Amino acid sequence: MPFKHILESQQFTLPLIKELFDRTDYMKKVVARGGTRDYEKKIVASLFYKPSTRTRFSFESATYRLGGKVLTTEQAKEFSSEIQGEMLEDTIQIISNYCDAIVIRHHEEGAAKRAAAVSPVPIINAGDGSGGQHPTQALLDLYTIHNECQTLNGLSVAFIGALDNGRTVRSLAYLLAKYDRVKLYFVAPAEMQIKPDILEYLDKRNVAYQLLNSVEEILSKVDVVYQTRIDKTRLSLNDTDLSKFNIDASMLQKMKYDAIIMHPLPRSVEIHPEIDKDPRAAYFRQAKNGLYVRMAMMSMLFDVYDSK
Amino acid sequence: MPFKHILESQQFTLPLIKELFDRTDYMKKVVARGGTRDYEKKIVASLFYKPSTRTRFSFESATYRLGGKVLTTEQAKEFSSEIQGEMLEDTIQIISNYCDAIVIRHHEEGAAKRAAAVSPVPIINAGDGSGGQHPTQALLDLYTIHNECQTLNGLSVAFIGALDNGRTVRSLAYLLAKYDRVKLYFVAPAEMQIKPDILEYLDKRNVAYQLLNSVEEILSKVDVVYQTRIDKTRLSLNDTDLSKFNIDASMLQKMKYDAIIMHPLPRSVEIHPEIDKDPRAAYFRQAKNGLYVRMAMMSMLFDVYDSK
Amino acid sequence: MPFKHILESQQFTLPLIKELFDRTDYMKKVVARGGTRDYEKKIVASLFYKPSTRTRFSFESATYRLGGKVLTTEQAKEFSSEIQGEMLEDTIQIISNYCDAIVIRHHEEGAAKRAAAVSPVPIINAGDGSGGQHPTQALLDLYTIHNECQTLNGLSVAFIGALDNGRTVRSLAYLLAKYDRVKLYFVAPAEMQIKPDILEYLDKRNVAYQLLNSVEEILSKVDVVYQTRIDKTRLSLNDTDLSKFNIDASMLQKMKYDAIIMHPLPRSVEIHPEIDKDPRAAYFRQAKNGLYVRMAMMSMLFDVYDSK
Repeated sequence: MPFKHILESQQFTLPLIKELFDRTDYMKKVVARGGTRDYEKKIVASLFYKPSTRTRFSFESATYRLGGKVLTTEQAKEFSSEIQGEMLEDTIQIISNYCDAIVIRHHEEGAAKRAAAVSPVPIINAGDGSGGQHPTQALLDLYTIHNECQTLNGLSVAFIGALDNGRTVRSLAYLLAKYDRVKLYFVAPAEMQIKPDILEYLDKRNVAYQLLNSVEEILSKVDVVYQTRIDKTRLSLNDTDLSKFNIDASMLQKMKYDAIIMHPLPRSVEIHPEIDKDPRAAYFRQAKNGLYVRMAMMSMLFDVYDSK
Repeated sequence: MPFKHILESQQFTLPLIKELFDRTDYMKKVVARGGTRDYEKKIVASLFYKPSTRTRFSFESATYRLGGKVLTTEQAKEFSSEIQGEMLEDTIQIISNYCDAIVIRHHEEGAAKRAAAVSPVPIINAGDGSGGQHPTQALLDLYTIHNECQTLNGLSVAFIGALDNGRTVRSLAYLLAKYDRVKLYFVAPAEMQIKPDILEYLDKRNVAYQLLNSVEEILSKVDVVYQTRIDKTRLSLNDTDLSKFNIDASMLQKMKYDAIIMHPLPRSVEIHPEIDKDPRAAYFRQAKNGLYVRMAMMSMLFDVYDSK
Repeated sequence: MPFKHILESQQFTLPLIKELFDRTDYMKKVVARGGTRDYEKKIVASLFYKPSTRTRFSFESATYRLGGKVLTTEQAKEFSSEIQGEMLEDTIQIISNYCDAIVIRHHEEGAAKRAAAVSPVPIINAGDGSGGQHPTQALLDLYTIHNECQTLNGLSVAFIGALDNGRTVRSLAYLLAKYDRVKLYFVAPAEMQIKPDILEYLDKRNVAYQLLNSVEEILSKVDVVYQTRIDKTRLSLNDTDLSKFNIDASMLQKMKYDAIIMHPLPRSVEIHPEIDKDPRAAYFRQAKNGLYVRMAMMSMLFDVYDSK
């Protein structure tokens, strides 16, 4: 079933993911030859109520490589509401006249769905609220695992960091649960563990998982280490404790030779730069995949839209 | 007589308005097929000293649909004056080297004229000062009436809201006065009524008008209700009083079946969202017309410029 | 020897400067016909941690006239660091996946070199730190002198203003020292004179120079007056004193008929607008040359990059 907007990871069935990843492989070739003109009539608006240069550039570059044009806001929240109480729905109904798709990042959970409810053009959710969704990140993460490990079945994946309000981890866990014989480890201080709703979902799908409070013991077992940010100010831990939830060079020796380390970036202290040179450090390749996956997604949206 | 800049509504004679509206009709067809490449060598700079995502995107989208390219500022005031006392005239003389037209929004009345005095490329005034001009808004308003009502002669138009410093109302009243048998109603609290200079102008042109302090009595007579923002903080009125200058669902019944409701947007509390579904609610169509009118205007400027 | 990044004036040998200026002459013709499509697959990212609309537009317009596309930030510092302690190196490694060149302006000296150390795509330094480099400004200044005076040998050049932390003056002095029989005058209040490292460099290259604390006496001798900003708040001088380091109309009479007045802009009080009409006022032509020089530089970088 085709889709009109990209709002949450749950939209992506296995066949849709397969089509997306096939298109992503194709987009790598498109970028290698400098892009295409196939979508040169498309205008994509970046409506970022919460600034993020990296994510914004990733979408805008994807638009350009597809041949399209870009309307941009660096900080829509501060600069567009001339009046108090202006409605997001009104903004979307106006701006949708000026473009062929809207990429929205918003501070409120559910904002993307509200936008989609009134928009005649495709809405792409680039993150809404800290507990909300960021589906393009989850799918580029999944693509990275698929691409680096050559499979998505039978993998052991460790999530490390502040997992309670990590929307990337929540969305990725949801997607991984679709595949066979997956084993998930959630490594976090007790007060920052993954929330019960995800665990209930995994139980229902018979996905094996384990909650841990130190990364050390499972390092030798996992195929993927997915490290997320830990806000030091939230921790009452000392540096020794912190090391339980971080990656340093000494840990590399304990990891499988073909495992990979991922991170949604930007990082703070969680991964020491000395690790960057190790071929298992996949986070910059992961960021690069964001370009290809977003090109693939936008091309799917445009193709559906144009065939109507 | 061709024009080099777009600075104020007064520039637009009846023949020029006719040409503009013919081009606007044509631009609708251009957009329907995804745009043109006719102006692909043109670079348009958005120089917004006062941010407005909607207006900026409208101009930038118009540029893209014409085939051109965009230099943009979200908030030029905050970010470009490295030094105190930097002159607008200097900025224009520098930036005009880098583009083929400048769209300027400025907090000071008269800024667009000052820019035009030194600019070798066309200046388009996208609003200067609260008492200043916003000619592209006035012309897209006029086009919307023309398009929705199929004529500009013999119409009754009610302006509602804080009319004293509403530059859109002032400019539109000026333009409507050019047409035959027009009747204007100005509905506002006494302290926010339209200023005498507009009334003197209407007297001189023998245009019929009436000042009112409630919308109710004329709702059944008018072809156009042009609602503008009322800043609640300016009002010492209670909610009952406020309803005299607002549109709600109960008023729809009293209006002509073929009347239209306009608003320059963004709205605050003046028009309840439940009205949006009524076919007479024309404000989103009005916003869409902004794209076509601005494409038409820019194409006129470029054609004049290139023929020199 | 080809170069991969543009980081500092010192990179530019005499043969490279010759190639750059030949290309700059050619780019004038390209702009006169509205630009080229030769580099239409190139995406250039403006990463401005310190805002400057003028410099940013100059680079972005150059990109467009070459046929390329633009990713832009008005104020990257404020809006992209979601976390404290985010590393510039990480930002560059991510963003370089989304573009073919990065133009960076940064508040820290040496930032451009740090970016270049990790970037797979060309880095162009658009100013780093107040004591750092701004090589594209220095080269457009040099090109302007070459273009206006028809030579770079045997010229007398006066630098006026706060010379101690003027990176444009420092870089230009460095470049001028490469040419024969050049004579430099540094005119500044004692506490703002040019720093000793530049003078040592001039001594080593046997370049004649003189330190002065008033512009008057050498006005009749010089071919170029290069005026820079004087921050009034830094001065404990009264207006009479200030006039020693400023250009006003009375001084024009004392200058050679074929001398030129330059300024990196924006200006404050240093040059009275009444001087703008004098044909010797070259500062707006200088700003225009910025477009051509930057097109030439980017085309050189892309040609080197693509030939690898």
